[in-house]
Amino acid sequence: MKPVRIIGVDPGSLKTGVGIIDVQGNRIRHVHHTVIRCGNGDFDTRLHLLFTGLRSLIREFKPATAAIEDVFVSKNVNSALKLGQARGALIAACGECDLRVSPYSPTMVKQAVVGFGRAEKEQVQHMVRVLLHPPEPLAEDAADALAVAICHAHHAPMQKLVSSIC
Amino acid sequence: MKPVRIIGVDPGSLKTGVGIIDVQGNRIRHVHHTVIRCGNGDFDTRLHLLFTGLRSLIREFKPATAAIEDVFVSKNVNSALKLGQARGALIAACGECDLRVSPYSPTMVKQAVVGFGRAEKEQVQHMVRVLLHPPEPLAEDAADALAVAICHAHHAPMQKLVSSIC
Repeated sequence: MKPVRIIGVDPGSLKTGVGIIDVQGNRIRHVHHTVIRCGNGDFDTRLHLLFTGLRSLIREFKPATAAIEDVFVSKNVNSALKLGQARGALIAACGECDLRVSPYSPTMVKQAVVGFGRAEKEQVQHMVRVLLHPPEPLAEDAADALAVAICHAHHAPMQKLVSSIC
Repeated sequence: MKPVRIIGVDPGSLKTGVGIIDVQGNRIRHVHHTVIRCGNGDFDTRLHLLFTGLRSLIREFKPATAAIEDVFVSKNVNSALKLGQARGALIAACGECDLRVSPYSPTMVKQAVVGFGRAEKEQVQHMVRVLLHPPEPLAEDAADALAVAICHAHHAPMQKLVSSIC
């Protein structure tokens, strides 16, 4: 059975985590993780950097399917707008590569990785390390993105193929 | 003096108005207007339709500069998120075509077109018709997008070239 490659995205308007895993039967393997940083330029330039950064990664690693974390929204409408714009540019990049994007709430991601929807961020990062043994240290955003990819492995239609991941 | 072509965008997650004008000296000319409609598909598909729709128009009409209306934000955080994502996909499309995007608030747009920042929507649409004589009827979103383009003509660095537009 060929492995299914998943790209997970943890969106942010300043930096966006990206994590890529391969899922085969009941095995899950770390492929790549990184953080796309947008620098200090104008907001439109930063959005385009997010777009091109994610598109480059998709073209390089050729995932079969994509997952993105739902934006965490505080009560601040301006933050929601900024995060929304980042998410829009990132989803457009997936569309450019004919990749459908499945959204997951932070609770679903935590549930999938730690087994508890209200887990702390540190618990999620710890479990991602335990499950994937990444070769390099994991930045927080990259760990979250890998967690999103693991969550997708649990919920996507290929679920039957990967019934007992983790 | 060569005319400067401006594309104006009035973003929305269901439909986005686009208006294109040429500015030369103190003259302003209607070139094109349309509304990109996203249909009823999944949200990620709709975002990509916005992206490709705007990119196609930019490639066809080759504007030199772009302007986008700041998203009107109600108190509803979810609306802000949806509109933000639409705006993010649209700005990414401009970036893809090496087009910088200038943002304008609704107040600035009204001020530029009607001379009064609290003008009614109908007044804006009326003035756009008077100024541009579009050959076809104007949908509301397309009129708003043309108004954004006119506003940009007032404020962009080319201002000196077009000091008395309208």
